[in-house]
Amino acid sequence: MQAWPVAELPHINVDTIMKKITHRHFPPRTGPKPEGLWIYGLHPVKAALDNPARKLKKCTLTARTADEIGVSRLERVRHEIVELEAVSKLLPQGAVHQGVALSCEPLPRRTLEDVLTSSETRRIVLLLDQITDPHNAGAILRTAAAFGVAAVVVQDRNAPPESGVLAKAASGALDIVPIVNAVNLSRELDTLGKLGFWRIALAGDGESPLNEAVSPKDDVALVLGSEGSGIRRLVREHCDAAAFIPITAAMESLNVSNAAAIALYELRRA
Amino acid sequence: MQAWPVAELPHINVDTIMKKITHRHFPPRTGPKPEGLWIYGLHPVKAALDNPARKLKKCTLTARTADEIGVSRLERVRHEIVELEAVSKLLPQGAVHQGVALSCEPLPRRTLEDVLTSSETRRIVLLLDQITDPHNAGAILRTAAAFGVAAVVVQDRNAPPESGVLAKAASGALDIVPIVNAVNLSRELDTLGKLGFWRIALAGDGESPLNEAVSPKDDVALVLGSEGSGIRRLVREHCDAAAFIPITAAMESLNVSNAAAIALYELRRA
Repeated sequence: MQAWPVAELPHINVDTIMKKITHRHFPPRTGPKPEGLWIYGLHPVKAALDNPARKLKKCTLTARTADEIGVSRLERVRHEIVELEAVSKLLPQGAVHQGVALSCEPLPRRTLEDVLTSSETRRIVLLLDQITDPHNAGAILRTAAAFGVAAVVVQDRNAPPESGVLAKAASGALDIVPIVNAVNLSRELDTLGKLGFWRIALAGDGESPLNEAVSPKDDVALVLGSEGSGIRRLVREHCDAAAFIPITAAMESLNVSNAAAIALYELRRA
Repeated sequence: MQAWPVAELPHINVDTIMKKITHRHFPPRTGPKPEGLWIYGLHPVKAALDNPARKLKKCTLTARTADEIGVSRLERVRHEIVELEAVSKLLPQGAVHQGVALSCEPLPRRTLEDVLTSSETRRIVLLLDQITDPHNAGAILRTAAAFGVAAVVVQDRNAPPESGVLAKAASGALDIVPIVNAVNLSRELDTLGKLGFWRIALAGDGESPLNEAVSPKDDVALVLGSEGSGIRRLVREHCDAAAFIPITAAMESLNVSNAAAIALYELRRA
């Protein structure tokens, strides 16, 4: 979450106002609320330090974790060696931080044009329609990075905010796979269509199994919907086909990150 | 979690003792702690009501959710129609219950011999080695049910307890896929070997990709390890082969439920 922009409101006692608002309108907090974006855990922090596009503020970590992260990475950022408990105090209760917390800026916004520069054999773009759960979105980013996805497109209004939970679930992928922030998914699908991408909506009621819906060398844009409501009608209408993953009748659907993993495996296999 | 067996200790005032223990030894609770096993959410509760092996206590639900669940299912269990907030009060804070909470008993213990009765073309058994996170274990159960897995074997000491969180993540699969509680995974692997199962450890450093590690008609026992420490050495030594899922060098590994999903898809595809 973004910090309250204290510096821009010098004449208002923001602390007092916030305290009042918090006391009146929110339940008591169980842990300290981190200001700005905090990334924690070994993989996520290593990836953030390795990402030249990531603006860093400060890294707080234990001596042991500093050894694991390495001197050359830590040279990039102001850092402080502390005891394990001091790291815990910076983060929400229960965060599995492995002895490191990195305060940094969210990544700069990028467009499809910015990131679709490479010309690999099969380019894959994932579009997430209203997938707001940070665990699912993070797991999808992780798998997207593992299968060399060219971009993950999320819609501004319905995406989970870039957060420590998302970064942790993504296990470093937040700083590896290019993320595109879109105002409107349908418009991005139009752009992808013009670029020659075959646009597939992944849906339980699709007309053919995924392995039959794609030609071996197509660039593919794959749309994933939220578990509750699926892909919105208008977004689906901007696809060339709807495809499903064959499962037994015992279950209605797969978890969305598991469906994404299978789809990416199938697309890379072909 | 299991309820304290009050009925078996009639001469001790368990309530008073528990209150003292709780006050002295545990941090203050943020929500009411449910007694016994509570299953919540539409899919999990429907599946539990449909499972003849599940011993039911009481179902508390809203009128609207009762319509969705249906009269014939509710005939099996004592139930009470309440307002939405009354359901929330029965469950841990933040539980997404969709207007229904079912109090019930954990499933009876079963063995491989109990569940491996069918003779389908390819039988698949999953063995979970120290996968204790209920979200991951639940997602694996869900995918296992979706791909018609014959049994999921968990080790008593290192499995997540049957819980509402697990049941919710499994989206009903807890009451669909047969679960075997094992004292010792290596012994179960011995049994599976004698039954003709080809035993595969899924590991990033396996010697061949999964699609090459299996013959098309083998019955397969697939071992999945925890994300942190992988499969334990002794368990791995009881397998016939170790196989991996091909991913790019950008990521070290996949989320374990995503890896399970891909493996099951590949095994059903072959």
